[in-house]
Amino acid sequence: MEKITSRTNEKIKRFLKLSASSSFRREQSLYTLEGARLCFDALLSGEEFSEFYFTERAREKFTRQVDEILKNTQNCFLISEEVADKLSSTASSQGLFAIIKQRQIPLAFDTQLCYIALDGIQDPANLGALSRTAEALGVNGLILYNCCDIYNPKALRASMGAFFRLPVMFTDDLPLLLKNKAIEGMLTVAAVPDRDSEDITKLDFSSGVITVIGNEGNGVSQSVINACMKKAVIPMKGRAESLNAAAAGAIVMWEMMK
Amino acid sequence: MEKITSRTNEKIKRFLKLSASSSFRREQSLYTLEGARLCFDALLSGEEFSEFYFTERAREKFTRQVDEILKNTQNCFLISEEVADKLSSTASSQGLFAIIKQRQIPLAFDTQLCYIALDGIQDPANLGALSRTAEALGVNGLILYNCCDIYNPKALRASMGAFFRLPVMFTDDLPLLLKNKAIEGMLTVAAVPDRDSEDITKLDFSSGVITVIGNEGNGVSQSVINACMKKAVIPMKGRAESLNAAAAGAIVMWEMMK
Repeated sequence: MEKITSRTNEKIKRFLKLSASSSFRREQSLYTLEGARLCFDALLSGEEFSEFYFTERAREKFTRQVDEILKNTQNCFLISEEVADKLSSTASSQGLFAIIKQRQIPLAFDTQLCYIALDGIQDPANLGALSRTAEALGVNGLILYNCCDIYNPKALRASMGAFFRLPVMFTDDLPLLLKNKAIEGMLTVAAVPDRDSEDITKLDFSSGVITVIGNEGNGVSQSVINACMKKAVIPMKGRAESLNAAAAGAIVMWEMMK
Repeated sequence: MEKITSRTNEKIKRFLKLSASSSFRREQSLYTLEGARLCFDALLSGEEFSEFYFTERAREKFTRQVDEILKNTQNCFLISEEVADKLSSTASSQGLFAIIKQRQIPLAFDTQLCYIALDGIQDPANLGALSRTAEALGVNGLILYNCCDIYNPKALRASMGAFFRLPVMFTDDLPLLLKNKAIEGMLTVAAVPDRDSEDITKLDFSSGVITVIGNEGNGVSQSVINACMKKAVIPMKGRAESLNAAAAGAIVMWEMMK
């Protein structure tokens, strides 16, 4: 097996470019993963490894899992600690890195189930955290509209692998999608901290629903609000203008799913 | 008024040291703030400004608020854009920086009210986000045990100024505090994702309560769990082992306060 010791190796440069550039990820239909937790989670979830990089130390520490990946991956490379440090975006690298083929779990709409739409989430850590919460609470799928890239390394890290299991749909016309789903009998709700929004605890989430959570600074966009049947608010008491997107999303999904 | 144009000015070095070092902050009983939102929020909340640094551009953009701070602060310094870039921890500085005297709003226990205890939260962004959520949902105070510094710039940024308004108590013996409050008639609950924990929706939060949220990786520490009357869990459906601390905290506080 080839051992890479040069931090300027072409493969290493390509890995870093995939980590840094969402357009390059899209063009190649690939993304990068780092760390034991995410790499092994990808393996368990049946993701297809395009390349796998690991240090001697990582193989000693995680022998069983590393061998399992080696068995299933054509392009595997042993790397030096220096190269691992170069690839790593954390202070103390675990020495495990993968390039994975992009694959979303397709979202097949069921008008009796519950979905979250994210409108303009721009912080990858928020996108990841919201996805993790959605999966943990059993949300049936995630609809993404004008959001940052789910394959951003920070999004993947915060997601704790939720994207491996959570059905995802991308749309470039969320207002139209919401209107169509309303016609099919689903409830459509925009989470908006307005005085004339309904208290979220008073809404009936017992049938199919799509709830929209908006951008960190500007909230749900006006065209999306206009397309929704209802506006819902989380009642608040403090002087803070609002909860952050991840906390607001957690409470909204909790009320929707429980 | 003195204008600072050198990035190696002693005052600038001291500001950076205060931003970087929690022990230096503690020793000086000071902390740093950056940006319009936090500086003006501190002003509104009656925080005492020890020093204030601003660019010409910031004064033009925020004339009224900057003049208000200038009126109330002895040590004010005009700084060049280069110095602002040096002080800033963000990509695009707003050119406003302050050194503020440490002051917590004392937490006066009322056995009828609702409090959150944080046990070992280590990520400043999580500490800030949990505080922001606590304030927004009307939690009556925050008890901190083995947590990172609330005056860490990342914590302050994520808090959106919650620490200016939320009563805070530090304890170095949370188990003892919990036992004492239980004797006084309060409910004490540890948020623990165990199979034998009670469903959080089934708990009666109608009287005074302290709910403990644990460390990002290890959860609530065993001695704290032992000291609590109950363990509560957020029922989950996904394969993710748990929600992240900020999302779990949001749901726990929401159930406690609504």
